[in-house]
Amino acid sequence: MSDSPARMPDHLCESGTVTDANGASVLATEAPQNRRVFLARASALSLVIPGMAALGACSAPESKGPQDTGTSSATRKTAAVPSREPHNSDSRLDSAVLKGEHKAGTSATASTSPPASFQRFDPVFPQLPVGGRLELHWRAREAAVRITDETVVAAWTFEGNVPGPIVHCRVGDTVDFTLTNEVDIPHSMDFHAAQIDPKQAFRSVPKGQSVNFSFKPKYAGAFMYHCGTAPVLMHIGSGMFGTIIVSPREPLPPAKDFVLVQNEFYLADAANGVRASDYQKMLNTLPDIVCFNGRPNQYVKEPIRVKVGDRVRFWVVSAGPSHPCNFHVVGEQFDTAYMGAPPGNAVRGVQTFTVPPGGGMVCELLCDVPGEFPFVNHGFGHGQKGAIGILLVEA
Amino acid sequence: MSDSPARMPDHLCESGTVTDANGASVLATEAPQNRRVFLARASALSLVIPGMAALGACSAPESKGPQDTGTSSATRKTAAVPSREPHNSDSRLDSAVLKGEHKAGTSATASTSPPASFQRFDPVFPQLPVGGRLELHWRAREAAVRITDETVVAAWTFEGNVPGPIVHCRVGDTVDFTLTNEVDIPHSMDFHAAQIDPKQAFRSVPKGQSVNFSFKPKYAGAFMYHCGTAPVLMHIGSGMFGTIIVSPREPLPPAKDFVLVQNEFYLADAANGVRASDYQKMLNTLPDIVCFNGRPNQYVKEPIRVKVGDRVRFWVVSAGPSHPCNFHVVGEQFDTAYMGAPPGNAVRGVQTFTVPPGGGMVCELLCDVPGEFPFVNHGFGHGQKGAIGILLVEA
Amino acid sequence: MSDSPARMPDHLCESGTVTDANGASVLATEAPQNRRVFLARASALSLVIPGMAALGACSAPESKGPQDTGTSSATRKTAAVPSREPHNSDSRLDSAVLKGEHKAGTSATASTSPPASFQRFDPVFPQLPVGGRLELHWRAREAAVRITDETVVAAWTFEGNVPGPIVHCRVGDTVDFTLTNEVDIPHSMDFHAAQIDPKQAFRSVPKGQSVNFSFKPKYAGAFMYHCGTAPVLMHIGSGMFGTIIVSPREPLPPAKDFVLVQNEFYLADAANGVRASDYQKMLNTLPDIVCFNGRPNQYVKEPIRVKVGDRVRFWVVSAGPSHPCNFHVVGEQFDTAYMGAPPGNAVRGVQTFTVPPGGGMVCELLCDVPGEFPFVNHGFGHGQKGAIGILLVEA
Repeated sequence: MSDSPARMPDHLCESGTVTDANGASVLATEAPQNRRVFLARASALSLVIPGMAALGACSAPESKGPQDTGTSSATRKTAAVPSREPHNSDSRLDSAVLKGEHKAGTSATASTSPPASFQRFDPVFPQLPVGGRLELHWRAREAAVRITDETVVAAWTFEGNVPGPIVHCRVGDTVDFTLTNEVDIPHSMDFHAAQIDPKQAFRSVPKGQSVNFSFKPKYAGAFMYHCGTAPVLMHIGSGMFGTIIVSPREPLPPAKDFVLVQNEFYLADAANGVRASDYQKMLNTLPDIVCFNGRPNQYVKEPIRVKVGDRVRFWVVSAGPSHPCNFHVVGEQFDTAYMGAPPGNAVRGVQTFTVPPGGGMVCELLCDVPGEFPFVNHGFGHGQKGAIGILLVEA
Repeated sequence: MSDSPARMPDHLCESGTVTDANGASVLATEAPQNRRVFLARASALSLVIPGMAALGACSAPESKGPQDTGTSSATRKTAAVPSREPHNSDSRLDSAVLKGEHKAGTSATASTSPPASFQRFDPVFPQLPVGGRLELHWRAREAAVRITDETVVAAWTFEGNVPGPIVHCRVGDTVDFTLTNEVDIPHSMDFHAAQIDPKQAFRSVPKGQSVNFSFKPKYAGAFMYHCGTAPVLMHIGSGMFGTIIVSPREPLPPAKDFVLVQNEFYLADAANGVRASDYQKMLNTLPDIVCFNGRPNQYVKEPIRVKVGDRVRFWVVSAGPSHPCNFHVVGEQFDTAYMGAPPGNAVRGVQTFTVPPGGGMVCELLCDVPGEFPFVNHGFGHGQKGAIGILLVEA
Repeated sequence: MSDSPARMPDHLCESGTVTDANGASVLATEAPQNRRVFLARASALSLVIPGMAALGACSAPESKGPQDTGTSSATRKTAAVPSREPHNSDSRLDSAVLKGEHKAGTSATASTSPPASFQRFDPVFPQLPVGGRLELHWRAREAAVRITDETVVAAWTFEGNVPGPIVHCRVGDTVDFTLTNEVDIPHSMDFHAAQIDPKQAFRSVPKGQSVNFSFKPKYAGAFMYHCGTAPVLMHIGSGMFGTIIVSPREPLPPAKDFVLVQNEFYLADAANGVRASDYQKMLNTLPDIVCFNGRPNQYVKEPIRVKVGDRVRFWVVSAGPSHPCNFHVVGEQFDTAYMGAPPGNAVRGVQTFTVPPGGGMVCELLCDVPGEFPFVNHGFGHGQKGAIGILLVEA
């Protein structure tokens, strides 16, 4: 035994609980009162987050305290009152600027319009911030996100959408980030592009509190961000993830850039028309839906459009929480795929490459033929569940 | 909403239907009459393709029309009358030439002998086509393929075998390909080595019709081909896949070349001694059999043979439909594995590398020791189900 | 049919049996008497290895012979009498030397203290052997290994621990290895760092017998070793795996080196406080526990400690038996990840890389920031089940 106290990273493993495939606890090293608080919160959210019921299995049975009912009314509004409308602005059109909430470097804006209508997620990332500095102030919130015409998900979100806003900066820029938690469950932020002490910067904050940190990305690439609060499987699986694009100091060759983050949904049956996330399903690793940018097949309905002669650069992230993205463009090959930070470690002539869960890759192709080129997760047992889109190359 | 009509790539997603893990529809964007036709066809095939029953779940319930029974007699012959014998000629012996059906660049021949006897799949690819031009005319057909002494699969095939014929050409060669569909289900062809508009070239054709296209491969490598008709998971999972080997313009170092394409079988219980594919199992991603070149452990029974001093080059494809191949040769390491198009991006000293589903890799080892070297998928939860063979190095 | 007799590699596939997802036999090519012996042994072990019951499904039903009961008393001691204490010495402290059993090149020692108390597995590898020669004599044995305070696993082991001892040598060194089998089930040894005829060197030996071979590693890297006796899925899944570190002839840049081998546990319900491995669960590929160095979250409780300014080099192996390790360090990126044998094929700026099951990778990061940096399998459906640790960087 070392002289170090037994500590758990709260952004990864609630109270040191390890859950096995059946959700049963196989290791618990921390004080039960922390679990009690967590379970009380989970219980209060059970109407909208049925999957949380499974979380109870992470811990020994405990009697429900009075705080369990105390917060349920506040929670109910999430289910009864539709959440704020998720919105992802197009940085090129920059309509968000008109609303006065736009910040360079993020395509997200807040909106208060109530109904969760279907909104295509714009795969274009915003322009680089001016002066090499990006200030972001996001809120962790719950939202009912319509991911298809038929399906609304009770999501845990950054800024009301799944995925969260796309962030864009350059190697060496300063990203100053603040997260304010608006909900009863603790949340946090983990940027894969940051080199920073996670114990401080990525710590969980309770409702009403904020955490602030800043970092300077060292490497270019497509990096994941996500809530790292335990159990992180539940937080990623419930919608708290997104992409930070880090451009190299020397610009890459001109291209049309698109961001695709693949994720899995594990959904409980609909309650009041809304489907919550199911933790037990996550542990079983068989998703109901697998998709790009949070909506199954959205780019089949509204393709990504480019012109003949364009170079297309995909910044692909697999948020998981569990599966890779075996990325492939039908009718094309990648002339360049960067194994590391672009422009380094370029590989030539790739039909399909694997983006690991929690990882990112950047790949390019030259559109010298017009047509409709589907892009897919070629692991079709999962890909068939919605990870299909179309790249439309017009003459 | 863009000005583009909402269109689905018919080679990927039947009628825009996204199926979740339970086979339930989560998105449908197209006219129901297309689904009706598809389901009618599926229903007609239910005797031999029980797995198609699960496909019904992709769509809303519909009354069975008279066409359901109209085609069943034609279908029944597949089950009752054993299909044409699958055959894979050895290009070196070139026995197929004697039958008058051989074409350079493909090792497949048609044969009309009825019983489905077990046939080892020859892992050797054919010689390069003369004059830099390859003309292929294949048929999509159903066949009862004996994959072990005990197991016969009711397969959907290219040219009556699983996998389909190995194609071999060189970067810049012209491949002129025609597919004629002989069965009731629409089929198509998607070559990963082609840069071409999939909407036209890879389109589905109904029974009796043909599709033709030509392409010039830009990159060397081991590329997958497969039927891309929706749901593509079902078409790959039922046997419609194979490999096209593209050699670089400058020959690689002399070696003994072998093609290994890994695939998964998801099988229903035997009916009349034949096991059909089960779509629900495919969605659950737990295969019954995982193997190289369509037959579990065939190269254990009849090893791949080389001599001491030989350089062996494996062209490995993972057809999936869902899982990677974690390729490993027991008692050896790869001195060269090409991350991209060979001879580029060579990696030295690899024990195991992952070929993603829908992807391919080329790797080499020098056989300077005699012995029996098993090659395996080292992800043994799947590999144990038949993805084992032997490389026999003789003095 | 070739002139080669149909032979099975006994280190991979028991009696040529291929098991499908339900454990049913789909191919059997060898004489039943071999299976009978195997099943008799399995039956004798059923008290401690309930998972072996599933193995019976690999073969046709056979009547139990008298030998079934003859060995059960010998077996019972494993369950009733706690096994020898697993121990992994710290090569730097080299306490094992004091016990007179230490050999350079392996961190394992034998110990005879009875109770299976929890012991952190030291991730540090031993010093290089003197004179470029390493002699190892290990025993295959069964042991009750405590992997958490609550969980004891009835393991099949090399030298009484899971994983087995870490071996360390240099490219070109001679490793002379002997395995003596002390248990009723046949066992063997397969070093991925060896180039050697597996049919001879990696052959299975019955109880009381030994196998000896020597090899000279050709490539640097983190290589897996494991028992290759059929069914290899069962032998790896039951604990018979470990890591051999091969350093290049020219030393890599100075760093703090750590070995992390990820594995999965598939456990039956506890019997007498001990949980055996469950083969059917292995075939279903949904593990109960996924962890580094054999114990879920052990490096959360007792972090791996380094200083600010240290370069840290992880030698990561995924033993599986089925899943990759999507390795990620929270709050850090890898400045170097070697795709092949280090120092070749270095990739820069990687957030997460995939180590295939049966594979290994080496990666480095520079600790220029103090803090607590969790390292994880970022495929959290599995990673949440215990593949989390902490790298503690102290000022």
